[in-house]
Amino acid sequence: MRIEIVAVGTELLLGQIADTNSAWLGEHLAANGVASHFHQAVGDNHDRITLALRTALARSDGVIMCGGLGPTQDDITREAIADVMNVALVRDQAIVDVIAGFFEARGRTMTDNNARQADVPQGATLIPQVAGTAPGLICPVGNKVVYAVPGVPYEMSEMFERGILPDLRARMAASGEESGVIASRVLRTWGASESGLAESLQDRIDALDASGDVTLAFLASGIEGIKVRITARARTLEDVTALLDKEDAEVRRAIEDRLGDIVFGVDDESMEVAVATRLIARGLTFGVAESLTGGLIASRVVNVAGASSWFRGGVVAYDSQVKFDVLGVPTGPVVTESAAAAMAEGAARVTGADVGLGITGVAGPDDQEGVAPGTVFVGLHLPGLPPQTRELRVPGDRERVRQYGAISALDLLRRALDASST
Amino acid sequence: MRIEIVAVGTELLLGQIADTNSAWLGEHLAANGVASHFHQAVGDNHDRITLALRTALARSDGVIMCGGLGPTQDDITREAIADVMNVALVRDQAIVDVIAGFFEARGRTMTDNNARQADVPQGATLIPQVAGTAPGLICPVGNKVVYAVPGVPYEMSEMFERGILPDLRARMAASGEESGVIASRVLRTWGASESGLAESLQDRIDALDASGDVTLAFLASGIEGIKVRITARARTLEDVTALLDKEDAEVRRAIEDRLGDIVFGVDDESMEVAVATRLIARGLTFGVAESLTGGLIASRVVNVAGASSWFRGGVVAYDSQVKFDVLGVPTGPVVTESAAAAMAEGAARVTGADVGLGITGVAGPDDQEGVAPGTVFVGLHLPGLPPQTRELRVPGDRERVRQYGAISALDLLRRALDASST
Repeated sequence: MRIEIVAVGTELLLGQIADTNSAWLGEHLAANGVASHFHQAVGDNHDRITLALRTALARSDGVIMCGGLGPTQDDITREAIADVMNVALVRDQAIVDVIAGFFEARGRTMTDNNARQADVPQGATLIPQVAGTAPGLICPVGNKVVYAVPGVPYEMSEMFERGILPDLRARMAASGEESGVIASRVLRTWGASESGLAESLQDRIDALDASGDVTLAFLASGIEGIKVRITARARTLEDVTALLDKEDAEVRRAIEDRLGDIVFGVDDESMEVAVATRLIARGLTFGVAESLTGGLIASRVVNVAGASSWFRGGVVAYDSQVKFDVLGVPTGPVVTESAAAAMAEGAARVTGADVGLGITGVAGPDDQEGVAPGTVFVGLHLPGLPPQTRELRVPGDRERVRQYGAISALDLLRRALDASST
Repeated sequence: MRIEIVAVGTELLLGQIADTNSAWLGEHLAANGVASHFHQAVGDNHDRITLALRTALARSDGVIMCGGLGPTQDDITREAIADVMNVALVRDQAIVDVIAGFFEARGRTMTDNNARQADVPQGATLIPQVAGTAPGLICPVGNKVVYAVPGVPYEMSEMFERGILPDLRARMAASGEESGVIASRVLRTWGASESGLAESLQDRIDALDASGDVTLAFLASGIEGIKVRITARARTLEDVTALLDKEDAEVRRAIEDRLGDIVFGVDDESMEVAVATRLIARGLTFGVAESLTGGLIASRVVNVAGASSWFRGGVVAYDSQVKFDVLGVPTGPVVTESAAAAMAEGAARVTGADVGLGITGVAGPDDQEGVAPGTVFVGLHLPGLPPQTRELRVPGDRERVRQYGAISALDLLRRALDASST
């Protein structure tokens, strides 16, 4: 099955936003064994959207259209699909009611434009909306299919998983095309270079090339580290899982031998989840004091489901006086290891937590206290242990120094929790 | 002149990188008065590249191909272009010498693969390389043209400016087409629905449709609100700027009349920049106390350049005890307007700031203190004024409630600063 992605929106052509939706869709199609040979982007123009759609249908088995389902006059994906299907658009009263309810719940009035989102090409089925107001569409065109989803990234991804993927799987099964199951597992690493990681796995890659059922790929994910994706193909889900488990163990062993404990999570497990797992296992609570990261660590931490059972809170001590007054950092230089240690102690004390983390440093662009941008000091307070500190050098501009600093500090905490539990 | 962009590289289809080159090219084509109605991405496959190129030539006046000019076996853009031109590839010895010199200067040996980069379709002219080793190509196809540039962003943009743009201008002049200038300005709004915004501007849209030189478009940007993009085309930059200025004023007036003060910024100005501008103008410092947003507001604020001159810091009071002990919130329910007001006071007091913001609420998925998810209370402390509070209802899951809560709270602060300064 070959699926073409057609992203709709003049803002894409004008370069006002990069087309991250198509990248996301491409990645998730591939991970599910669906080929995608072409992507297109087209503006909010009826004739051009229909031309792009017809072009895509001519050279692929199906099309995912992304964007142009909103309520305004330039949202015309519905009309374009109906045109290509050669059917009428029919207003679906049940959807109108859902949209009206959505507005009512927010104390607002539904406008006529919003009702356009209830227009459905005859013969299409719906992917009901759970967020936003526009439903997705599944539109048969001969023996091919056109899917339409909104361009808002979280609505797009949610409808892909819930509506498109099951339909695609059913079509592949019905056509007898499905020769097996493809599945991937991602090992997430922090602290190694892509080339270093590749070298540590060169023997595995060479060994796998012979078989072809299992492949490894590297995906540099910036501030989230480097991912190693293991992809396996087999006849059944059970066989695929066995292949993934086996290669997972091999890859971890090879990485560990060369680079140490750099694998922190699997698939969607973030660094803060890795930290949370360890805190929960030991019944420890956590507090944080942040200077240069300005709340980034705390805001990552609270996104872990159930964080309220172990996260007490934090202090964003951006101004030095806040470090002195609130956290009890001794008056003097604040971009030092000892300040980071005092911040960690202060974080635990002020929030009443067992474990405290303190982070200070220079985001740039200028030096501070004679310390160069990219210099970060992390302090850790663990119960019954003397304070631990680490100096880091992280690359990039202000925003990246902060992001790298935040995940690096959480990684140090992860390792310290492991070290102190053995 | 309509130029289509064809990005070449399997990594684009697999979503391993987002196609930022096409966004860059689209923006710079538009800025130079060149329309771009379609973008395509295609993998490293000869037949598919030629198909994408033929498709592009059929519906546009010219094509920029980006990527696939490197030295490895999967770099086959040169071959695909020669195929579509129906000419042979000829190795250019002068380019071979330049490439050999490039390697020699680095103490490395040129491989046979690298010499492939000196292959030129007969009839093409070169954009000589100044960085890297692959030259760009200008390839006439009938009365149309195919440009090819490397996918390395720096090389791509440099060759566009130096080689493609002058050639495009010459072609447009020769055909008697006025190149003109296209420019856009984005007005950023918070607090209105896309459809409500569209209705407030319906009269403007109707009026503009007649002329065609100025257009309006809406761009829902999720947690960053809804953007209104004004695009203008004219003969000179001066004329375009005048058109943008005029329409900017019209749009603001129409929005203000119907929806009030919802425009908070222009182009890249975020909500925190809008707040910063107002604080700086009045010489006020700022502190924040966050419960459900868990540091999100603080981490947005510190990304504003120069934040250290007015941002003192914050308290992430995730656990109720931290609200009581650190912020002085009276013991009792913490998801209330009065708790938010006490947090705002506490934020100002603890951080030593003039202005304090407090935010509490329920991110979900469960109720808390009998309060439903999506309920958010914001408290504001402004110097010399009694505490202000607001209750908000925000949609979405945990993450979205937090994100919406954070920007909504900053928007309330923006409006309160405006109201208190008059």
